[in-house]
Amino acid sequence: MRRLAIAALALALAAPSMAKAPAHKASPPKPMADVVAASPASDWRPLDPQNTVYLELADGHRVVVELAPAFAPEHVANIRAMAREGFYDGLWIERSQDNYVVQWGDPDGKKPLTHKALGGAKSKLPAEYDRSSAGLGAFTRLPDPDTYAPETGFVAGFPAARDLKAHKAWLVHCYGMVGVGRDNPPDTGASAELYAVNGQAPRHLDRNVALVGRIVKGMELLSVMPRGTGALGFYDKPEQRIAIKGMRVAADVPAAEREKLEVMRTDSKSFAQVIAARRNRSETWFVHPAGRVDVCNVPVPLRAAR
Amino acid sequence: MRRLAIAALALALAAPSMAKAPAHKASPPKPMADVVAASPASDWRPLDPQNTVYLELADGHRVVVELAPAFAPEHVANIRAMAREGFYDGLWIERSQDNYVVQWGDPDGKKPLTHKALGGAKSKLPAEYDRSSAGLGAFTRLPDPDTYAPETGFVAGFPAARDLKAHKAWLVHCYGMVGVGRDNPPDTGASAELYAVNGQAPRHLDRNVALVGRIVKGMELLSVMPRGTGALGFYDKPEQRIAIKGMRVAADVPAAEREKLEVMRTDSKSFAQVIAARRNRSETWFVHPAGRVDVCNVPVPLRAAR
Repeated sequence: MRRLAIAALALALAAPSMAKAPAHKASPPKPMADVVAASPASDWRPLDPQNTVYLELADGHRVVVELAPAFAPEHVANIRAMAREGFYDGLWIERSQDNYVVQWGDPDGKKPLTHKALGGAKSKLPAEYDRSSAGLGAFTRLPDPDTYAPETGFVAGFPAARDLKAHKAWLVHCYGMVGVGRDNPPDTGASAELYAVNGQAPRHLDRNVALVGRIVKGMELLSVMPRGTGALGFYDKPEQRIAIKGMRVAADVPAAEREKLEVMRTDSKSFAQVIAARRNRSETWFVHPAGRVDVCNVPVPLRAAR
Repeated sequence: MRRLAIAALALALAAPSMAKAPAHKASPPKPMADVVAASPASDWRPLDPQNTVYLELADGHRVVVELAPAFAPEHVANIRAMAREGFYDGLWIERSQDNYVVQWGDPDGKKPLTHKALGGAKSKLPAEYDRSSAGLGAFTRLPDPDTYAPETGFVAGFPAARDLKAHKAWLVHCYGMVGVGRDNPPDTGASAELYAVNGQAPRHLDRNVALVGRIVKGMELLSVMPRGTGALGFYDKPEQRIAIKGMRVAADVPAAEREKLEVMRTDSKSFAQVIAARRNRSETWFVHPAGRVDVCNVPVPLRAAR
């Protein structure tokens, strides 16, 4: 019994507790597991193999990243081109900073970043840190205040923010989001260095760096990498680095070897129910439903393709 | 050079960028490293050995937890008594759930939780999930909105929230905060099961469970524990558990073997400058200072005692 202490945090239990349900609610929301179980097939979409890349670790494990061309089209095009050219082949996870980021790339800068060497990728990219809020498609807005942005929500599966007065929208740095490392000049992140958030959302990075996608599967492989003891969590010694085979565009991988995954559409009725479930946990364990939710605390459900 | 991509995120550089400092500010805030370097000794306090416990791992590593008796006095008293009675000796890290919690305790429930067996600790504790906001001492309030609470800030070194209309205050679930696992009845968390947050702040747990302290040193040892593949990240097989020696109250450890640490006082002028530095990063790397900060993104500086 004690083994299951704080068990109900993630499990959806059968009997919702009415004890402290907010007074203005007729009934508590369905727990997330029930929402997922009841969702129609039309509320799911397969990952687009052109917008999916696999980070292949040398030990045979695979991390699945969904790319976000609507927000960072040139960086995404670079990542595709560089993956196809083999740029990431034989590189390393080179940095693991606790409660911040895990980073992979070319720590010694040995691979040239020229247009030619990159097989058509660009060595200089624009600062795709935000974009016009117009023409973005559905923005599933969360009803609760956010510390950093006027509005937060989801766009095509990604956590995002919006400032309608400034006509801008951008991706936000939630756990598992993938961005492009850069030096001080804001145009130096050709996509040679990629990082994933491994702790509390560093939202102060929003609009300071190009976010290019989200790890939809395999983050638990990266989050446990031993923390680097060098400055900023870089590995002090080359032998501490963790080798990667490379990155592959899913479309280039034989269909039989691809991950067959579907994510819930964030503009669906089911996802609206997921948000409701996360705002007020109705599982028995809870005595004080929050009535609020942060954009980085709403998971986008994932399942095996059917 | 590429090695240092997104380097300036954590480094305090010499020359603050004026380019995008908010118009209403005469000058950008000092970077955090400069604040720490310039802080007077009176803005620091040593850890109180009666309110500090060491989680000693079997491999010889040590995790330092500062306890919060102002918020959970009975749970803290239990942890002290149980540590002294050897309750935690020979237990395990038994759970590591990605982007949620790492948990240690007695997974098979073999140790009795009776008053007598616990050497005076209580087998049933009140639900210390919040407390009166009166009589709490200084509450260093953050100026920015929070998704979950009317006010957030710091009390005696801990991230906290407050609702003055309801006359309540509580600790919040930031990265590295330590809480007491419990089953569904809200009074079953005798402190036999402890967890630490290892990802995005699960703020929906606030006021649902007793937070008892904060890991001030050594979180990077716990955050990399292999993720459990059982339900809720529990280790499926006993041999996957990571052994711990036990927990020790620092006051019971010979002075020469204690950690000599100081934390910045969160009611000090220096800490106010830390908050300012975190709200608007003035390091050269940033092109878009946030102008806001979440309570879980303000670190409480730690240093070796002087």
